[in-house]
Amino acid sequence: MAPIKVAILGATGETGSSIVNGLLESSTPFEVTALIRPASLTKPKTLDLQNRGMTIIPYDTSANAQQDDEQAIQALRGIDVVIAAVGPDGMDAQLALATAAKAAGVQRFVPSFFATAAPPRGVVDVRGKKEDVLDHVKKLGLGYTVIDIGWWMHGFVPALPSGRTEYVRVEILTMKGGPNVLPGNGDVPTAVTATEDVGRFVARVIADERTLNKMVFVYGEVVTPNQAYELMERLSGEKIERRYLDGPEIMAEIPDVKEALANGEADMLAILKHHVLQYYYSIGVRRDNNPEYAEYLGYLDGKKLYPDLKGVSLEEFFQSILDGKAKRPYTNHS
Amino acid sequence: MAPIKVAILGATGETGSSIVNGLLESSTPFEVTALIRPASLTKPKTLDLQNRGMTIIPYDTSANAQQDDEQAIQALRGIDVVIAAVGPDGMDAQLALATAAKAAGVQRFVPSFFATAAPPRGVVDVRGKKEDVLDHVKKLGLGYTVIDIGWWMHGFVPALPSGRTEYVRVEILTMKGGPNVLPGNGDVPTAVTATEDVGRFVARVIADERTLNKMVFVYGEVVTPNQAYELMERLSGEKIERRYLDGPEIMAEIPDVKEALANGEADMLAILKHHVLQYYYSIGVRRDNNPEYAEYLGYLDGKKLYPDLKGVSLEEFFQSILDGKAKRPYTNHS
Repeated sequence: MAPIKVAILGATGETGSSIVNGLLESSTPFEVTALIRPASLTKPKTLDLQNRGMTIIPYDTSANAQQDDEQAIQALRGIDVVIAAVGPDGMDAQLALATAAKAAGVQRFVPSFFATAAPPRGVVDVRGKKEDVLDHVKKLGLGYTVIDIGWWMHGFVPALPSGRTEYVRVEILTMKGGPNVLPGNGDVPTAVTATEDVGRFVARVIADERTLNKMVFVYGEVVTPNQAYELMERLSGEKIERRYLDGPEIMAEIPDVKEALANGEADMLAILKHHVLQYYYSIGVRRDNNPEYAEYLGYLDGKKLYPDLKGVSLEEFFQSILDGKAKRPYTNHS
Repeated sequence: MAPIKVAILGATGETGSSIVNGLLESSTPFEVTALIRPASLTKPKTLDLQNRGMTIIPYDTSANAQQDDEQAIQALRGIDVVIAAVGPDGMDAQLALATAAKAAGVQRFVPSFFATAAPPRGVVDVRGKKEDVLDHVKKLGLGYTVIDIGWWMHGFVPALPSGRTEYVRVEILTMKGGPNVLPGNGDVPTAVTATEDVGRFVARVIADERTLNKMVFVYGEVVTPNQAYELMERLSGEKIERRYLDGPEIMAEIPDVKEALANGEADMLAILKHHVLQYYYSIGVRRDNNPEYAEYLGYLDGKKLYPDLKGVSLEEFFQSILDGKAKRPYTNHS
């Protein structure tokens, strides 16, 4: 089998680096290219990708550069699959990338979703931006696969009295600093995935003809926040403090960042809190992030597509934290 | 089998009246309710629906009335399927209707699509409004079925030198007045349906569990505009004048109605021309309105779902026009 040629935008990010690992370690042969901003070409992370056998291609995501797309089309010629793994601020860069991918004859475009099952618009603002990209892809008639993976297991890691879990807790994901926050009544089932599994799942999905022009929901397991906390109490032998935030309480805590976003003011913490609390509401109050609602929205279920594909369980993940062997997200994975 | 209880908003319109006929004449038992504006309760068309055994329920679509939805929920209780068949100006009325339908326990909501296969946004403005409604339905988690039927056969009826087709030609659909207009080079295959078939197709689709939470593309046949004109020349024995409008020419003729729409100025002809020319571009230049692109967009294909379901052929429709037996759209169908 000829290797599948994949180009990734955002290869050094949290999701992107998991995808790189998943592709390079897959039994399916992939030939992986990273699309890197010219300014980052000589950074250690980029050189590391190169050392691992990946091709590096300069790709300028700035608006000016996107006007001249001939270079981008040239770069993508011969590529089978283009994957975008960008943050909330980088969504728009995918529009020109998709247009160039279509012109270059790319077979499948994987837009940057990689999050929870959620309604297209009106609940999670970031989701709406992703749907705008998907609308653009459909207007192009470009082959695509949407891959969502649920909520990161890292987002459910509670603080322990002993402090043993602090080294993997990301401030904004876990509302670190105050007491442990659980959305809703804590009893709403939610699909969770270990970040290291994202890439393994993606490698499987993009090599599968059945997922072309489809949305796929792949996840490790489905748990409630309460179950997650009880599991950690059992594994650690410690009592965990909880603070429940019901729907109106979550809504009241969401910072109004519309003006800040419009003015280009980068109060990053407020913006991240805005995003995360919208996810909390979607996950814990609206009950969006589960296989049933995903199926209603039109997703294929990864558990049905790949019965043999086992992800890291929440128990394994929590145990690895207590064993001091887990990684903190947003650190260098390369 | 217990009858399926259906409520229709827009039952006296062109699409709505076809749906009413399709449901009442179906071998599947339907119990049909019309949701009628209070001001129209005593109109002849409404009384006629009543005489045909339909239940009439007052339903106020004005924005004020939608604030108080308790009455709407009460009206929809016990209804299995709600169908909206409204024009471009009435799309927003579906938002409150869908919310009430969810609260009333309605199983399936059929939003007002009933047109061509087209990308969600960015080509046909009306389509974007429909997608906004669908986004709202998905946010509600309300069961739904999107039904699109292609382009009306009436839209491809050419003027003949003898004038024999004039009695069914609608000015705006056919760009009546000037020469016969064909989009693009006239060679792009397009799905077409006779208006009378819309209701027959809908009756089949909404009684089918496979179409729940899906989009369905049902149509009579697929033809190119040139094939349609050649067919009419053969049937009529007359030579038909043609004017081809390529992509840039169509774009140049689309009136800019954004300001008119924003100011509430109702230059209806300009607005309709804007809509129809956007459809022309989508159908005849972009090649959107065909079963292949519909499948890419995620539609189920009516021909595959219902191999036995034959629609009126374009030849039968054209012959009925020449025989003086066809109907003009937008006249009273009740």
